[in-house]
Amino acid sequence: MLKKLVLALTCFAAIAYADSVGNINLTKTMKVDRSLSPLAKQCVECHADKTPGIVNDWKSSRHAHAGVSCLDCHAVPADSPMAIKKEHPKDSGNHVSILVSPKTCAKCHSKEVEEFQQSGHARGGVQMFAKKGMIDLMYHYEGRDHPDLKDSPSATGCIQCHGMEIKLDKEGYPVPGKGWPNYGIGNAYPDGSVGSCKSCHSSHTFDMTEARKPSACASCHLGPDHPNIEIYNNSMHGKIFNAEGNKWKWDSAPDTWDVPDYRAPTCATCHMSGIGDLNTTHNVSLRLKWNLWAPHSKQRTGGFETAAFEYAKSGKMTAGNVLAGNPKGPEAARTEMKQVCKSCHSTKSTDSFFVSADMHVELYNNYHTDAKKMLDDLKAKGLLKADEWADEFQRIYYHLWHHEGRRMRMGAVMGAPDYAHWHGVFEVQQDIRKLQDIYDARIKSGKIE
Amino acid sequence: MLKKLVLALTCFAAIAYADSVGNINLTKTMKVDRSLSPLAKQCVECHADKTPGIVNDWKSSRHAHAGVSCLDCHAVPADSPMAIKKEHPKDSGNHVSILVSPKTCAKCHSKEVEEFQQSGHARGGVQMFAKKGMIDLMYHYEGRDHPDLKDSPSATGCIQCHGMEIKLDKEGYPVPGKGWPNYGIGNAYPDGSVGSCKSCHSSHTFDMTEARKPSACASCHLGPDHPNIEIYNNSMHGKIFNAEGNKWKWDSAPDTWDVPDYRAPTCATCHMSGIGDLNTTHNVSLRLKWNLWAPHSKQRTGGFETAAFEYAKSGKMTAGNVLAGNPKGPEAARTEMKQVCKSCHSTKSTDSFFVSADMHVELYNNYHTDAKKMLDDLKAKGLLKADEWADEFQRIYYHLWHHEGRRMRMGAVMGAPDYAHWHGVFEVQQDIRKLQDIYDARIKSGKIE
Amino acid sequence: MLKKLVLALTCFAAIAYADSVGNINLTKTMKVDRSLSPLAKQCVECHADKTPGIVNDWKSSRHAHAGVSCLDCHAVPADSPMAIKKEHPKDSGNHVSILVSPKTCAKCHSKEVEEFQQSGHARGGVQMFAKKGMIDLMYHYEGRDHPDLKDSPSATGCIQCHGMEIKLDKEGYPVPGKGWPNYGIGNAYPDGSVGSCKSCHSSHTFDMTEARKPSACASCHLGPDHPNIEIYNNSMHGKIFNAEGNKWKWDSAPDTWDVPDYRAPTCATCHMSGIGDLNTTHNVSLRLKWNLWAPHSKQRTGGFETAAFEYAKSGKMTAGNVLAGNPKGPEAARTEMKQVCKSCHSTKSTDSFFVSADMHVELYNNYHTDAKKMLDDLKAKGLLKADEWADEFQRIYYHLWHHEGRRMRMGAVMGAPDYAHWHGVFEVQQDIRKLQDIYDARIKSGKIE
Repeated sequence: MLKKLVLALTCFAAIAYADSVGNINLTKTMKVDRSLSPLAKQCVECHADKTPGIVNDWKSSRHAHAGVSCLDCHAVPADSPMAIKKEHPKDSGNHVSILVSPKTCAKCHSKEVEEFQQSGHARGGVQMFAKKGMIDLMYHYEGRDHPDLKDSPSATGCIQCHGMEIKLDKEGYPVPGKGWPNYGIGNAYPDGSVGSCKSCHSSHTFDMTEARKPSACASCHLGPDHPNIEIYNNSMHGKIFNAEGNKWKWDSAPDTWDVPDYRAPTCATCHMSGIGDLNTTHNVSLRLKWNLWAPHSKQRTGGFETAAFEYAKSGKMTAGNVLAGNPKGPEAARTEMKQVCKSCHSTKSTDSFFVSADMHVELYNNYHTDAKKMLDDLKAKGLLKADEWADEFQRIYYHLWHHEGRRMRMGAVMGAPDYAHWHGVFEVQQDIRKLQDIYDARIKSGKIE
Repeated sequence: MLKKLVLALTCFAAIAYADSVGNINLTKTMKVDRSLSPLAKQCVECHADKTPGIVNDWKSSRHAHAGVSCLDCHAVPADSPMAIKKEHPKDSGNHVSILVSPKTCAKCHSKEVEEFQQSGHARGGVQMFAKKGMIDLMYHYEGRDHPDLKDSPSATGCIQCHGMEIKLDKEGYPVPGKGWPNYGIGNAYPDGSVGSCKSCHSSHTFDMTEARKPSACASCHLGPDHPNIEIYNNSMHGKIFNAEGNKWKWDSAPDTWDVPDYRAPTCATCHMSGIGDLNTTHNVSLRLKWNLWAPHSKQRTGGFETAAFEYAKSGKMTAGNVLAGNPKGPEAARTEMKQVCKSCHSTKSTDSFFVSADMHVELYNNYHTDAKKMLDDLKAKGLLKADEWADEFQRIYYHLWHHEGRRMRMGAVMGAPDYAHWHGVFEVQQDIRKLQDIYDARIKSGKIE
Repeated sequence: MLKKLVLALTCFAAIAYADSVGNINLTKTMKVDRSLSPLAKQCVECHADKTPGIVNDWKSSRHAHAGVSCLDCHAVPADSPMAIKKEHPKDSGNHVSILVSPKTCAKCHSKEVEEFQQSGHARGGVQMFAKKGMIDLMYHYEGRDHPDLKDSPSATGCIQCHGMEIKLDKEGYPVPGKGWPNYGIGNAYPDGSVGSCKSCHSSHTFDMTEARKPSACASCHLGPDHPNIEIYNNSMHGKIFNAEGNKWKWDSAPDTWDVPDYRAPTCATCHMSGIGDLNTTHNVSLRLKWNLWAPHSKQRTGGFETAAFEYAKSGKMTAGNVLAGNPKGPEAARTEMKQVCKSCHSTKSTDSFFVSADMHVELYNNYHTDAKKMLDDLKAKGLLKADEWADEFQRIYYHLWHHEGRRMRMGAVMGAPDYAHWHGVFEVQQDIRKLQDIYDARIKSGKIE
């Protein structure tokens, strides 16, 4: 209790410090003047008519109450790479950007942005465009290399969650039809920064409580390839949240949101929140032992994610650090995660849970080893079609790891039996038999069927 | 704000006008007498014991508070085509119908019923029974032409959402086992009227706020062929609703429900509500540019829906107007929809969103053109099986347009990347390759495999 | 109303009676002393620091308010088969069990536990380990007979909902990696009792209201093989709950929770609650006419479930009573269920609903009869592969009954058209055609393809 109080006070102190002497060029302190500038008032008055939803959101936000105006986020120097070329409002001498990047958010929330960029989240967008396989899938296979239409699979699909490199046209507006607007977590901005705070804290309230709820993650972490919200709903945690979550306390200050504010954890609780002695973090990879998304799961021995820093430095889109996790290593990551569990579960129960979960990851790897061996052998013998999506073997192999194999692993580690089993290993065991049949036939005949 | 007030007042005035001098034969005015007749009281007293759920619903409804009794909706002349033959209550001289049709609702809610009948919703039931393909699927392929059981696929499935032509037995009760009771949107009644208000405003509260929530649409707009609630939950709109919708204001008067009553739109907001200068409408087709459900998407150039009016006139079940939309044309429809978006999004953002969405619809059409060409060619050459469900080519073709193709299109237009992509184009691109393989083999061999 | 009041009073009287003169060895009465013993206080104080989630749950529970302490459930004699060998707390002379079985819950809640053990729920765990087919699937096919990993499919999957036979190691802790911890409904404990109250009333609040919500059932009754929560959400009942359930009254006393506390039933309402003249029951099989989970649906003519009683007597894991239902027979079960419906629906409507639903079950059986005939014939002729999961015929046959066939039947009986149809009969009719094709080819060629 005392610890929590100290934490809370430290937290307020930190905010005050940043406001008064940090590198955050505020012309006013929160204490003496929260009134808006005449220009900021003009924003609000005009947009209250034009886009009332935006203004109403903002009015109820903590930003508005702290005197953070439209201009504090949208105003940019005329020569900013983010700037709309025309003055806005007309003849005001002011320039705005339609985009707000993490660099802007970091003016006040530097710790959060830094942690975010050290997480796997930060490579969401750039890694996709650094991999030939993904580009082929989006533009060639799905987009059919169509001169006018090939952009829509990425623009309406992948980019919406993953993000993209946003480029502006001559007037300073994002090029239409390429993927903007989106709520992708890993957008790369003309100012060199990477990420998207509003993916989880939706504009224009940018609410802390919103990001603590499972729905914050649900618009991206769903579906056949990483059904994390379905997994949550299947778990005992989700079950309890769904029964009574609407009555929990969601607005405790950062690092103080803990039992008994809630009776079961949400996504944010386990992956980000300051439970017990743990610090709150915006690095969602920090408590993860395995990379469960990969074709073959490895332990996360890679330290921090690198893609965002690389982009900021060189403007290059890179695959990032596929083993990004906790710089102290995968076992340290697991220990941190277990600390969350132990708020409500005994050590015996917590440890036993992860014994089975890890076994299921290893069992998946066991399946994958066999599948990969067949794939490699067929490749070596020229028994794979060039068009992987017209090749039944390659189609099943892809689904084995990317769809059912992820469900099998993620279901086990997050306590969702239906995904560990029915949508997971039950399908994987059928996949491997189908692969074996095709493999045997091709090896026997020396031909692709 | 002033506009909204005027609208609200107009709205109240309209109700008063209709009550006092409209063609709505009320024997009392709302002003002077809201007490129930002795017979109406008898309904309530007896049914409070027999079906307390119904009476309790009604007691808390606006109907009850306005003095609209059971009899106002259920009492019918003895010779009505809707009437139960025996008097009810026994020896009362009164007749009731177990059914309440839109014609009855229109006694007070004429504008809503008319708009509804001009919408695609209104053809839900009758079009299904006007198409040989659908009848074959329900009764022959699924129902196996079984003398006793062939009705259950339609009765437990299709009809529950689509509706049916409800026929009464000699005693005036719906024939059992044919699809009644159901909550199908497009029921055709013995009195010639078509539709179902209670599909969205469930009996016996008939609540306006219920129909404003996503769940109102979710019991029909779900699943593999039009996963609209899943699409909504995947979208940023749904994400925000799921985080905080339980705190929004849902009971504003018609045409006044607008920002800041909510922070994100629901299905009803975009497709029906009076946002900004737009009028509220019960014609859900009015703001739609494309018919996204069709095998090949066309723009909605057909004006109002016709099926309900045709049924009222001739009693014929017709396929309706597959291009029903906005009588001012598809671009006017789109402009109206964009007006909703612009309450919260900039014009640039709104326009850019639809550029990608429309591209994805066109890309689907591009796929479908190729698939259809193969289908037609195989048909011309006698290379399709007569039993379409035993024919792998026809099975995949059906799924391409009816399942994954709809998801691809609807996901793009409603901002749901998982449906635009994983459940959409990702599957469509595999389908087309499978179709191509079967096509090639049949053309080469001149035989069905 | 009067009936309800009498019921409520009887209920309180029963509690008082059990407390004062029942075979429940309480050393205090609720009336005079609800203070905790010094040792019980020590539990709370120490665990408030170690596992604050547990203590906080308990503090707000009815247990805590009634003076039921940690020790009342966890303290066991030193020689109990459930006991942890070391004293806890250290040198206290006290022994605890990490497990709490239904036998413990029955000290106060004997009626509930007995009813539970008479229900199909009670065989969830033991039946799974009594069937060779299930053991083969979990350990051989899915677990690959892997010396170290073969346990994970059951441990992370099946057992989590079904339960298992929990065995303790020499120190008195559950053996890790075998399936504990889990929230399986049918755990068999070292003390011979079977079941799990906390599957629905999650620890450590053990809340009545939680179990009344659909989410209570949703963590197990979901997915491809029994999508009951999806079915509920698809139904008109679920739609109404999803729109307004957060405002209903959930905490009425047992047997008094009825209309107008809610506007639509949840799972518990129909299957367990004391609606009208019906008594509340924890035997969820009591109102069921059919066994919809079986390969071929039969009427439930078997009386009470037997597996839990058999395990208590002999320690044997048995398949249980697959026709367990209402001891008065399937029609009596249906009549009880209809009594629930009739709170809100007319008799005509209720009866007509079940006419269609039963037809759909029979139609499924009609499909299954044909499928089973082909299977049996191929088996007799040696035309099935020994590895059933490598055999396309057997794979499809399994999915026909276990996945889509259950959805078809359950969707019809619980009012979910998308499951009765699209996820049900629509897929079953395609399955039967695929089976026919394979069957024909094998019979013709005398070979497995």
